Parts: sequence; C-alpha cells; structure tokens
Amino acid sequence: MTAPEPSKTLVELERDILDKNNRLAERNRGFFEARDILALNLVSSPGSGKTALLERTLTDIGGKINFAVIEGDQQTSRDAERIAAAGSAVVQINTGKGCHLEASMVHDAIRQLQPEGNSVVMIENVGNLVCPSLFDLGESKRVVVISITEGEDKPIKYPDMFRSADLCVINKIDLLPYLKFDLNALRDYALQVNPKLEFLEVSATVGTGMEAWYQWIQQARPSA
Amino acid sequence: MTAPEPSKTLVELERDILDKNNRLAERNRGFFEARDILALNLVSSPGSGKTALLERTLTDIGGKINFAVIEGDQQTSRDAERIAAAGSAVVQINTGKGCHLEASMVHDAIRQLQPEGNSVVMIENVGNLVCPSLFDLGESKRVVVISITEGEDKPIKYPDMFRSADLCVINKIDLLPYLKFDLNALRDYALQVNPKLEFLEVSATVGTGMEAWYQWIQQARPSA
Repeated sequence: MTAPEPSKTLVELERDILDKNNRLAERNRGFFEARDILALNLVSSPGSGKTALLERTLTDIGGKINFAVIEGDQQTSRDAERIAAAGSAVVQINTGKGCHLEASMVHDAIRQLQPEGNSVVMIENVGNLVCPSLFDLGESKRVVVISITEGEDKPIKYPDMFRSADLCVINKIDLLPYLKFDLNALRDYALQVNPKLEFLEVSATVGTGMEAWYQWIQQARPSA
Repeated sequence: MTAPEPSKTLVELERDILDKNNRLAERNRGFFEARDILALNLVSSPGSGKTALLERTLTDIGGKINFAVIEGDQQTSRDAERIAAAGSAVVQINTGKGCHLEASMVHDAIRQLQPEGNSVVMIENVGNLVCPSLFDLGESKRVVVISITEGEDKPIKYPDMFRSADLCVINKIDLLPYLKFDLNALRDYALQVNPKLEFLEVSATVGTGMEAWYQWIQQARPSA
C-alpha cells in the first residue's frame, strides 16, 4: 500500500518551492566558497546528540578553528544558549510549524553572523529524518548523526536522508554494552542506500572517537 | 529570528489539505465508534521504540484483546513483518517522500484490515516529532513515545506534538543508570506545554512498567 497520489497542483507547488530553495542554496554555496568556509549541515532524529557533539567540538577545537553556528528548532533558543556558552557565535532559527531549515533561513542567518574567512559554519537542522533531506542549504557536506539507541534499521526506513549524506556520525557508542545493537548491521544498511557514505563512531559525552571527527573536519576544509 | 512568511497560496493550500484531512479523520472516528474500537495513534522520534512496545504488547495481551495494526514508514515493511510475527493482523503504509500518515491512508487501511468489534487498532505513525502532530487520523487517543536517550527538553522543542497527545510513554527506562537524564525535568517540560498529559514509564525490551500500560489500554476502551 502506498500513499495516495497528491494533486497536480501540490506536486507543482512542491517543485516551485524546491526550485526556489535550490537556487538560494547555490547562492549560499557561493558565499561559503568566496570565504573558504566549510559549511556542515547536521541532520538527525530528535535527541541523537547533535548539540552535544557541537558543544564538545567547540570546547575542544574552538581555540584553533573559528566556528559560527546556526541552530534550527521548532521552538526555544535552548540550543543557541548551549552553543553560546561553549563560546561560539550563534543564530537561532525557530521554524514554528516548519519541520526543516530552508536555504532562505540560512541565507538570512549567514548575513547576520558574517562568518570569517576560513571558518567552519555548523548548521544544526531541525531534528527530523524525513523533510530536511529534501532541502539543500548550500552546505559543503551533509552529516547525518545517528544514536545507537535508535536501532540499526533507520538507514533503510529513512533512505533519502542517508542517501543524501556524506558522513554518518554514529553517536552514543558508550551505551553499546547496555544495548542489543549491531554496528555492522547499521553500516551494511546505510551502505545499501549510499555506497559512498563515510562513518565515524563517537561518544560526544564521554569523548570517544572525537579526535577522528576533528581530523575529518580539518581534511574537509577548503584550505586542506 | 523566525521562519519567513510563506506565500498566501501555500497557506491556503495547507488549509485545504488539513480541512480535507480533518473531514476524513472524523469519518475514521465514526467507523471506530460504530465498532467500539479503541484506536491509538502512536507518534515519536525515529527509534524511540514504538515497534518494540507494540511487539511486547501483542505478545503479552494479544490473547486477551483483538488487535489490528497499521504501520507507517517512509520505506520498508520491516515493522509490519515484526508485528505479523507477533501474531497480529497488520497493514504497512509506505509514505515514500511523505513524513506523516494522513487520515485517507488510515481510511484505506481499516477497510483492508476490517478490524473486529471491540478490538484495539494501533496506528504506528512515521517516526517524526513535527509533521504528524498536524494530522488527525480519527484516533481515540494520541500516544507520544519518548526514549530517555533523547534528552529532557524534547517537549518544549517540539511542543505541538506533546500538546496534542493524551499519554506520554517514557520508554527505555532500563537505561536510566547509564545516562544523565532527569525524569522530573521531562515531566515538567511536558506539563508546561500540556497540563493534562498523562505519563507512563516503561522498558519495552525488559518489560518494566508494561502492566500499567495494559491497564491504561483496558481503561481507554469504549467497553470499559
């Protein structure tokens, strides 16, 4: 059983929205390129630990690399407050009823943040494994974060997200002894939908594997 | 900073879609009412354990209560296979690019399932804390499942979902010793957005608290 075919009007309207988004995303991409900025779009389920990953990253290497952060949430500025406390320039976007960030929001945010040349812009998307996959923000790389508490089969249940990602950060590996979780099965499922996907295993709270994440960031920078 | 105002056309179109959905939801509600069926709409983030909760429920009390299950996922029929293995009639709905179930999909599914009088219909929505909150399916009660690995602040970050729910099932409490998680803070945040919300604490894998969940189901049935 599949979803009913939407009306032609809706399909056309979706296409218009995505076309407009894709054009603005390229404008963001040009902005990042002009300033030698690495822009990462962090996507995941709610609660997979994106903010904790950012907090630790800013604390550990914020002295060496200039970061600017864009925080997306339906409501609250809690994440922006956590990021500001970790010492980074940050803009919070509240999407209200919206379920994803769009290129226009990032466009406004980077003009407000004015990230410096050779910096790293971290865009924390709304926690949602479906809708954000459709919206290019102009990022250099898309990073999907998955917590091992979510189960191995998420890549095949939400294939668009894993197909569109460059890196999969497997988080909360400190909980591995307490869960029935098969890391190899997760990788196999993810590679089924995206054979080029890279993987890192970390615990943002305990610190395991963070060094490899920092190296990945360094190597992804335009200056590398 | 807030999301840009969408065009009037889009707002109108959204209203049309929701109006149509709400009418069909009432039709589903009438169907359930006519057969004295309790219909639960289970919503959550991906990986919070909705399917595990259903599996254990079917295994434990499937002999006493007639269940029928509607499974929503972007892709795969994995959940339907798990539910069928636990002995229940089940229909899988794949939403494709869609991020939520709609009343029309449930309408088609219940005509296919033909749930018996006095049964319980479990509708497992797509894992997503944003979009499913907008779509009434005609359910008797909405149950939001949250895993304690997701953090305490989800109710205020995704308020629409917690505001629209009747019951909050807090899952994976067997992991409490290994996490920094404050159950009282979660309850406080959830009550801020929805003072009438009820709570249950369970571990669907270990079995803790499941008896209270079964009692809740029994008391919610039209025959109770």
